[in-house]
This record gives sequence, structure tokens and C-alpha cells, in this order.
Amino acid sequence: MNMAKNTENQTLLPEPTIRRLPWYLSYVRMLDNLHVEYVSSTQISKELNVQSSQIAKDLSFLNIRGKTRMGYEVSRLVVELEAFLGFNSHHDAVVIGTGSLGAALMQDRGLEHYGLNIVAGFDVRPDVVGKRLGGLPVLDISELESWQREHHVSIAILTVPVESAQETADLLIASGIKALWNFTPYRIKAPDDVVIANTSIYAHLAIIYNRMHNTNNDTRQG
Amino acid sequence: MNMAKNTENQTLLPEPTIRRLPWYLSYVRMLDNLHVEYVSSTQISKELNVQSSQIAKDLSFLNIRGKTRMGYEVSRLVVELEAFLGFNSHHDAVVIGTGSLGAALMQDRGLEHYGLNIVAGFDVRPDVVGKRLGGLPVLDISELESWQREHHVSIAILTVPVESAQETADLLIASGIKALWNFTPYRIKAPDDVVIANTSIYAHLAIIYNRMHNTNNDTRQG
Repeated sequence: MNMAKNTENQTLLPEPTIRRLPWYLSYVRMLDNLHVEYVSSTQISKELNVQSSQIAKDLSFLNIRGKTRMGYEVSRLVVELEAFLGFNSHHDAVVIGTGSLGAALMQDRGLEHYGLNIVAGFDVRPDVVGKRLGGLPVLDISELESWQREHHVSIAILTVPVESAQETADLLIASGIKALWNFTPYRIKAPDDVVIANTSIYAHLAIIYNRMHNTNNDTRQG
Repeated sequence: MNMAKNTENQTLLPEPTIRRLPWYLSYVRMLDNLHVEYVSSTQISKELNVQSSQIAKDLSFLNIRGKTRMGYEVSRLVVELEAFLGFNSHHDAVVIGTGSLGAALMQDRGLEHYGLNIVAGFDVRPDVVGKRLGGLPVLDISELESWQREHHVSIAILTVPVESAQETADLLIASGIKALWNFTPYRIKAPDDVVIANTSIYAHLAIIYNRMHNTNNDTRQG
């Protein structure tokens, strides 16, 4: 993993900004495919329903400046956003727990376009250990520590059952993992120098149910 | 879909509360499996690293009260959290775009434990339309409108390529979909009475890269 590439990416960005940048990227990628040359923050604002002053502020973190009356050069904005978000670097990762979600992530080539390079999966189940998923090996979790001494992977994707979340996280951290992408609904405890990103798909479901119920309860009985 | 079951779920909950409730649920489910009878907010606080006053406040939305010196009855807390979050109701959903992520979600039985009942997938690709995934039919997106007239599904899981996100969303909304679970990095525009939940897995990756880089740049070269 080459972190040196990422030289601009030195600031601890506010999380809301990081959440918006991929929206801008997907929009300007589309414009780039349509050979559009320039885009203004006003135009991005209309399309994405984000205030144009906020867009200008978010993009000010990047190594790019808009031209008066023209706006941002689309092709450069794509490149700068990808670089800034780390999507054009390669970050090796392991998947821990190769159940349905873990297996899906191992077979999903889409993540490569965002710089994530999954190199192996780990599991405890004898019937899956030793097999391959998406061309990648599934290894026994007991081999993780010795495997890590050779591979030094920084990112682990945690897709184990919730009951095993914390003990698995402890094991990963002991073996040198620096960032945990946690897909379990468990709140992992970890030292401050370990990055934890929670993708709470169950929380999102709860939000959908709650909002839907409240949006609809005047208009339909369900 | 029986919304009447969800009678307590009438409040538009603050999103941070909805995000924390599944953490409490996964913890108290574990306690329940260990036959623990009571749990205090202090105990939950220590385990999950959330202030106990915050926990008490979050749980005050529920139809349960803690007992002095004892805390909350674990088994009832599980039931009340599940009911409140909508995880013990059945919510029918369709998957739109049966690529790797969409196909994985159709085959993931885990979502059923959170009340989500996927009934069909839709796609545009002739080589997948007509096949089955996880025992469920994959239908042509052109059939969606007539299919919906019979099935009245409220939730669509959007896992199409980003370029098709908005036009597919428009089609879904026109066919009566009330909630969109958006897995694309595109910011969907929709009328106010349609619920949009964004699961921005790419944004989470960017957060990992940014935080990891900043956490580590003093201590290792990568």
C-alpha cells in the first residue's frame, strides 16, 4: 500500500464534507463521460440539492480552483476528487467472516474502483476454509496472525456474527490491523490509533421504517 | 405489510437516537442469550462507550421504564427495542439492480431478522432477467409498474449503476414506491413524501482512508 501517493490527503476532514465529496464525484464523472468541459458550483448545487456556498467550501480542501464565469474544469475535478478521496490508490484489505455479506464483498469487483483491493477472506467454519471466493482464498482465522506478518494489510472488513464482533476486532488489532470497516451492529471498542468506520445497515433500515411510517400514516393504512 | 402493529413507532425520532438503538439491541440480545435478567444504563454505557444519561434519554422513547437499583428487564428491553425499531414487523421490498451487491442482498437471509422481506429483484440485463436469485425471481424492470399494481411493495433497494440512479428512482416513485434505500453514491432527488436512506459505502471508504492516513502518518510509512 502506497500512502506516499496520497500527499494532499493530510487534513483530518470534517465527516460531512467527506460524505458529500463522493456525490460530487459521481456527478462530475457523469459530466465527464458526456464530455462536458466546465461545471460551476451553482450547477452542482442545482443537481445535488446542496447549497453552492457549501460546495465551494468543500471543494476548497482540494488542489483545484474554479475559474471566474467558467467554474471547475470537469476532467481535473474528477482526478482531484479521486485522488483526494483515496479512490485512485490501492488499499489492501481482508474480509473477516465470509457469510453472505462478506462473500458478496469478496466477489464485488466494484470496490476496486474506489481503491479497495480485497486480498483474502478469513473464517472459522471448516466447510468454507480452504475454498475460494471471487478468486480469493478463504483462510482459517487462526492463521491470521502469521499471515499478517507477511502481508501487513491495514484494513479489515468485519462481517462476522455480532456475538463475535468484539473478540474478532481484538484479534485483528493485535495482528496489526489499522482500520476496521464494521458492518456488524455492534459498537466496537478499540484504541484511539485504530480507525473504526461503522456501516450500520440495520440502523438505516430502522430509519426507513420510522420515517416511512410517519410520512405515510396520514395517507395510507399500509 | 402490517403497519398497525407499529403503534408505538409514531414519533419522528432523531436520527442519532435511531443509530444508537441497534447498538443497545445487539448488546442486550447478547445478555438475553446469557440469561442475564437486568441491565442498567450505567452497564450499557460502560460496554458501548455512550454516556449513560444519553442512553436513558434514548430509551425514554420506548414503552419501558427501568426499575430503581435494578435497571431494565433484559428480555423486555429486547422485545421493546425490536418493536420500536420495526425489526419484528414484515416490510416487503424489491431489489432494483441485481449486480453483485443487489444479488448479495437477495441471497442474504440476515435482513429478515431485521424485518426486511425481499420478494423480487428487477434488472435490465436479458441474461439475468427470468432467472432466480436466493429463490426469488429476477424480473424485467419494464414489468415493474404492472407488477406493483398487484404487489404494492413500499421499499426499493437501489443497487443500479450510478448513471441510472436518478431515472430508476423516478420510475420507482411513479410506480408507488414510498422508500428508497439508496446504495449508489448518487444523491437522489425525490418528492418530500418519499423516504430516502443513503448507505454511502464509498463515503465510508473515503473516511477510512482519510482517518487512517492521519492516524498513522507519524507512526508508519505504510
